Amino acid sequence: MRPPTPFLSVDRSRVEANVRRVAGWAADRGLALRPHAKTHKSPDLAAMQLAHGAVGLTVATVGEAEVFADHGATDLFVAYPLWVDAERAGRLGDLAGRVRIAIGVESPEAAAQAGRALAGRPVDVLVEVDTGHHRTGVAAAEAGRVAEAALRAGLSVRGVFSFPGHSYAPQGRAAAARDEAVALAEAAAGVRALGLDPVVSGGSTPSLAHSDASALTEVRPGVYVFGDAQQWELGACTADEIALTCRATVVSRGPGRFVVDAGSKALGADRAPWATGFGRLLDDPEARVVQLSEHHAVVECSSPPPLGSTVRLVPNHVCNAVNLADRLWVTEHDRAEDPRAAQDQQWVSWAVAARGRKA
Amino acid sequence: MRPPTPFLSVDRSRVEANVRRVAGWAADRGLALRPHAKTHKSPDLAAMQLAHGAVGLTVATVGEAEVFADHGATDLFVAYPLWVDAERAGRLGDLAGRVRIAIGVESPEAAAQAGRALAGRPVDVLVEVDTGHHRTGVAAAEAGRVAEAALRAGLSVRGVFSFPGHSYAPQGRAAAARDEAVALAEAAAGVRALGLDPVVSGGSTPSLAHSDASALTEVRPGVYVFGDAQQWELGACTADEIALTCRATVVSRGPGRFVVDAGSKALGADRAPWATGFGRLLDDPEARVVQLSEHHAVVECSSPPPLGSTVRLVPNHVCNAVNLADRLWVTEHDRAEDPRAAQDQQWVSWAVAARGRKA
Repeated sequence: MRPPTPFLSVDRSRVEANVRRVAGWAADRGLALRPHAKTHKSPDLAAMQLAHGAVGLTVATVGEAEVFADHGATDLFVAYPLWVDAERAGRLGDLAGRVRIAIGVESPEAAAQAGRALAGRPVDVLVEVDTGHHRTGVAAAEAGRVAEAALRAGLSVRGVFSFPGHSYAPQGRAAAARDEAVALAEAAAGVRALGLDPVVSGGSTPSLAHSDASALTEVRPGVYVFGDAQQWELGACTADEIALTCRATVVSRGPGRFVVDAGSKALGADRAPWATGFGRLLDDPEARVVQLSEHHAVVECSSPPPLGSTVRLVPNHVCNAVNLADRLWVTEHDRAEDPRAAQDQQWVSWAVAARGRKA
Repeated sequence: MRPPTPFLSVDRSRVEANVRRVAGWAADRGLALRPHAKTHKSPDLAAMQLAHGAVGLTVATVGEAEVFADHGATDLFVAYPLWVDAERAGRLGDLAGRVRIAIGVESPEAAAQAGRALAGRPVDVLVEVDTGHHRTGVAAAEAGRVAEAALRAGLSVRGVFSFPGHSYAPQGRAAAARDEAVALAEAAAGVRALGLDPVVSGGSTPSLAHSDASALTEVRPGVYVFGDAQQWELGACTADEIALTCRATVVSRGPGRFVVDAGSKALGADRAPWATGFGRLLDDPEARVVQLSEHHAVVECSSPPPLGSTVRLVPNHVCNAVNLADRLWVTEHDRAEDPRAAQDQQWVSWAVAARGRKA
């Protein structure tokens, strides 16, 4: 029995196809795959990724690492330049007692702080490199200097990493991958000059297909498991690969428009400057969510569905939509509902076990 | 002991001042106050509002109504044009057995559906009127026709309501209140023509001060309890009235900018076209969040704080920030942290009991 709308529905067969395809792609190129689990926050999905050859998981927070460690993950990378205060040092130390764990670092000051706070607990670090996204990370030429500071602070330096987030731009995917390859190669050289053999970790879902396997040793895509409207619009997935939608009920209807009972509290409010709306409909590629509030999405389309019917919305950014749900509702082959047989699909649910673990 | 960053911190004395001020304002004008609990989702805060004279609570979903009924609320209005299917009819019927409950309706079709599904269970309806926001609701002239359909469907019609959401615009607050007064007066006349004595319910936080007490009988502001960057920028609250911030740690720092460990998964991603950023700093009114991702906010300001220090971010839209938290961390007089005494505030926590209850 499915829950009331709005809820997130997952097509299991599409998820598995996405997991298999990217695992095969990475294996063919000799790249380690360490998928970002912040997208799904789901132990069920992590298990599927690990079963298909992922070397471990990427997470964004210590709290996410704790959840996945509790559910059997054994190799976790917190791909974030944490400020390791005493509280986080204690939790990282606990994790280090039961899994292989690494964190990001991007300044000599943060490396010194982490070294002091961790006091020898076996937590590796990777130096974050800014390869063009201009969020966090050091310039490639500085990576060696940060690695040296980390070594001086008593930390074990595993390698370098980046998030080429400027791949989230029309026609930006290949260029972001090229920027990443050049910058990470330079950063890795700086670390090799210290006598180390670094992991070189990059990759985002939009840039993934363009990744340079001669520069990288590891990739960390996240969104590829589900896809979303952003990936669809960037050309990083097809509509047929989108494996998660938000089921919502039509509560209002007029010429050329309708309103459903899912808003920013179900879909998230993400909207990139280049996005064509606040979300889309899987079953009507011309339709757009043109207005979004907490519990309303206003959709413009040529043929509004009847009041009371259910539609499948594609969130702009699936990571934030998942983070708003306690469970994902999973069916083997999800499909648009036949109003005469709306309840005939078989559903199971997966816990979004790391929902809200933002610290 | 406070939790690790990012977390939502609440200044209890400011919340109480906001609750008292608006309760007094409504009482002075003879308006019933039915605050929207979707903002705080907190039984502790609802109890404070009710203790200061609120006649009941507004909620957005049946799930929120269930949570507040479980915590002692006795009069609840789901201010949303629900499509009442069998599942929701059953839950509304259960609620009607223990609290006074009403829902919104905006079409003859939805009224007929609700009448059939509820089958006599005592759930009142209020007709939603579009007073200029153009989301849901009927034109004022149609309200009588929808009320008549509801009566024919066996429903008890309590009144008319609107959300003047076009008050969320620079210089739009007073005009939205005027639009609302005119439209709701016309809609109420249509309902009075059926021999009823309607509740006339309106109001949003930005338009509240301009509400026309001769046209309305009830107001339903929500955000006023906390304030947020949107209200600050609209002039609907002062910085001194902002009672909720997101505490976040500086993880990266450069000339004129820094990055903290709170992103869209802590603050929400809301950004109105007129907003000056993705959020602000309470203690530096010139600073702006210029870039937001899931776990990063990039802040531009003239004097970046030190790495590892804690700042107080003001979310753009507090309702969505609260919906991302399991608990609110409450202190009597919140203040910028003194790095030499960061832990000297006393904290309690309030459960965000209706978090995620979007159905």
